[in-house]
Amino acid sequence: MPDDRLDRQIRFLVDADRLKSILRRTPLVDGSRPENSAEHSWHMILAAMLMQEYVDGPLDVMRVFEMTAVHDLVEIDAGDTFAYDVVANESKAAREREAADRIFGQLPDDQGARLRALWEEFEAQVTLESRFANALDRLQPLLQNAHAGGGSWSDHHITRAQVLRRMAPIETTMPALWPFVLEIIDRFCALGVIREAT
Amino acid sequence: MPDDRLDRQIRFLVDADRLKSILRRTPLVDGSRPENSAEHSWHMILAAMLMQEYVDGPLDVMRVFEMTAVHDLVEIDAGDTFAYDVVANESKAAREREAADRIFGQLPDDQGARLRALWEEFEAQVTLESRFANALDRLQPLLQNAHAGGGSWSDHHITRAQVLRRMAPIETTMPALWPFVLEIIDRFCALGVIREAT
Repeated sequence: MPDDRLDRQIRFLVDADRLKSILRRTPLVDGSRPENSAEHSWHMILAAMLMQEYVDGPLDVMRVFEMTAVHDLVEIDAGDTFAYDVVANESKAAREREAADRIFGQLPDDQGARLRALWEEFEAQVTLESRFANALDRLQPLLQNAHAGGGSWSDHHITRAQVLRRMAPIETTMPALWPFVLEIIDRFCALGVIREAT
Repeated sequence: MPDDRLDRQIRFLVDADRLKSILRRTPLVDGSRPENSAEHSWHMILAAMLMQEYVDGPLDVMRVFEMTAVHDLVEIDAGDTFAYDVVANESKAAREREAADRIFGQLPDDQGARLRALWEEFEAQVTLESRFANALDRLQPLLQNAHAGGGSWSDHHITRAQVLRRMAPIETTMPALWPFVLEIIDRFCALGVIREAT
């Protein structure tokens, strides 16, 4: 029934509004408040439009956009898991799978399966599209932390080794950006915002 | 020079962060706060992924995503102009053109021209892609106002004729959704939230 199909699509879109209330550890550039996962997803899509030229290889940019739009939806139920929180990351996969069941399950079967596959592709980080999307997911908070004077790095006593590991997808998918990323990390190490010790 | 190119792209992305602080008249679904234009843009892209099946005709969905991602960027300088504010809408075009000059002018020339053309296409509402994007720009606040119990309709004494005119792009690009839209408008008229008188 087409009406049931539309009802399910609308219900999903209304539920998705809650992503705007999921707060991340990264501040806005002006430091005024934490960023939420919905506006973060938009910013990544804008970055994908500009940065795709640094990726070597045939890239399905359309799939990058779609993957980016859905990549954080599971946080509606599972919350945002801070990248540097070891304990929370142990339970992350199970919590997010359960969230995916409910959230994508609201949609008509074909669309639910399609969006869930995009999210799983993002998480697996195997395809070039997902590795590029993950690199953008690292670049964007780097820029915001740097402009906000440290952001989640200083708030959570993060070390240079942790940041380098976190930023690695940028090096592999957009190597031309790596000197720029290192320059930022070095600068915030010199300031004592990112710690040298592990 | 490639470094200058990257600098300009990064500067643009950092400046674009300010769209997250541009508040619209539409509340979030839970009524907790006004929506901002960055998260609104993300929500429209998600809606485009699901609703494209209601559009009759060959649709370049990739261009819809890109157009949607940039459609509100001029608000960083020009602010959000409330759709039902007649006076503000008279100066809107001039204010937004000036904003576009500065904002897209930050980018390397080729990318700046491309993004500006997408914004101009959205504003002109001539192509099918731009009419679909505009329809999504109307559908999304309709859903949020309806779920938040009236939102910007009740706050600003909006009439049925005004809402019908505003929603018209939904009727022309996604006619299958029109009965659903009319049902919402009728319900909020019956509640006295949308006014009958013009």
